[in-house]
Formats: sequence, C-alpha cells, structure tokens
Amino acid sequence: MNLAASLAAAAAAAAFAAPASAQFAKPEDAIKYRQSAMVVMAHHLGRIGAMVNGRVPYDQQSAVANAEVFATLVKLPWVGFGPGTDKGRETRAKPEIWAEQAKFKEHQDKLQAEAPKLVAAARTNSPETLKVAFGPVAQVCKGCHDTYRKD
Amino acid sequence: MNLAASLAAAAAAAAFAAPASAQFAKPEDAIKYRQSAMVVMAHHLGRIGAMVNGRVPYDQQSAVANAEVFATLVKLPWVGFGPGTDKGRETRAKPEIWAEQAKFKEHQDKLQAEAPKLVAAARTNSPETLKVAFGPVAQVCKGCHDTYRKD
Repeated sequence: MNLAASLAAAAAAAAFAAPASAQFAKPEDAIKYRQSAMVVMAHHLGRIGAMVNGRVPYDQQSAVANAEVFATLVKLPWVGFGPGTDKGRETRAKPEIWAEQAKFKEHQDKLQAEAPKLVAAARTNSPETLKVAFGPVAQVCKGCHDTYRKD
Repeated sequence: MNLAASLAAAAAAAAFAAPASAQFAKPEDAIKYRQSAMVVMAHHLGRIGAMVNGRVPYDQQSAVANAEVFATLVKLPWVGFGPGTDKGRETRAKPEIWAEQAKFKEHQDKLQAEAPKLVAAARTNSPETLKVAFGPVAQVCKGCHDTYRKD
C-alpha cells in the first residue's frame, strides 16, 4: 500500500469505525499493528536481555537507547486488541483476551509500570541495577504470553 | 517464539553476527524488524494525516502523542537494512538500497530531520501549523518509497 492509500485507509478507519477501534479500518489492520509493535518492542528488550545475560558486552548508551524505545513501544500494542480483533489475520492471541479484558489490562498496566524503572536503571550505568530491573519486565512479558498467547 | 527463545536469538545475533548487522541473528529477522517498525510508524503518521486532511477532528493531544511516537519510530527501521538483508523474507525493498547506500541514507536523514519539526508543530496547537509540517514528512516518505520500494 502506498502512503496515500495508507493515509486514506487510516482516515477511513477513523471516520467510519466504532469509537473503540476507530484507529483501524479493519480487524486485520489492528492485528498487524499490534503484532508489529510487539516485534519492535521484543527486539529492543531482547537487546537489553543479551546485555544483562552477558551475551553482549555491557554498553550504557545502548542500554539507555533500547530501554527508551521499549518504554515508548510498551504503550502501543493494546489499542490493537479492540473489540472484534480476535480474528481477521493469523494471530496467536487467545480468545481469553476479549473474555477477560480487565485481567488482560492488568498485565498491560504492570508492563507499563515496569518500563520507566528499566529506563531509570539503564541510566544509573550499573549493569547490576539493569539486571535487577530487567527481571520483572521479562516476568511480566512471560506471564502475559503464558496466559494469553497460543504456543 | 517465547520470550526466552527471543532473548536467546537476540543474544545469539549479537554474539555471532557481523558487526554491521549484529542486532539480528538472521536476515529474515532484520527484514521483519524493519517492516514492523515501518508499520507502526506509518500508522501513527497516518493518524496525523487523517487529522490534517480533515477526515478526523483535530485533537492536539492526539496530534502530539502520534507525532512523538512517530519521532521515536523514525530512527528505528534503518538498522534492519544492513548488508545481506536484501533477501531472506518477502520484501518490497529494491536492490538499489544496497547499491546506493549513501543516497538511501540521505532519505533517512531527511525524514529524521523533519520528525522533530512535526512534534514541535503539534505542540503549537495550530491545525494549520501541523498541516504545514506534515507536508514535507509525507513527501520524504513518498520520495523514498517511489525510489526504493517495489509496487
């Protein structure tokens, strides 16, 4: 899709869709968006993971940059889980997401609460502090995936 | 892929790949990453596009939020165009990207120069100013896509 078409699609989405999913023209767009945001988010967290696990040398600048991108991305995917977006494109999202909206949101909130702590930890320039902050973030990811994502 | 596997893959990538593409274990990972970053970036720019084109009501808070996410995302995809990432997964990226690295980088630099102007324009709370700043951003996107992206 070219830019004009993308913009037109976004405009159409906003103009015609129900408010809760107004950002997306079609469920498949919402699914593609949330999956894309997750891919980018996981990549940047993975960069920090490699560092705290000693697979790549510790580098504060990289830790801060990756944590900051992660903290921005961590806010994004959730709008892509609106009503009616349980199907429309291949997805590993379990139906429980839409059946347990409040519980699903708890996971989102936990993750968003941990992200600024990861940024702050990265800024201290202490590999140990970074590792301590990384653990709970990875746990929140895993907890949500174990519950709401198909294998 | 579960989180542990994702982190392991990222670590393996960083440990074994060549420096220029050290962030990715395989070309397909780099391609998936850059495509995902582009999807998220296009979505948020599209939200502003819908606003400046009058398809959705002007809303400063939304304009600023979308411009800020765009300004973060605009820095990301390029690392995914490293050497050897011209194939490995379905991609519309033209071979010219790898043949004309300096020219391709000019487009990236232009886009990254425009993004903060879009954020600043959004913060003025003037729909007209936002529209003026949006134009060049959309032009840079289009210029690069016309040259380096298959139809």
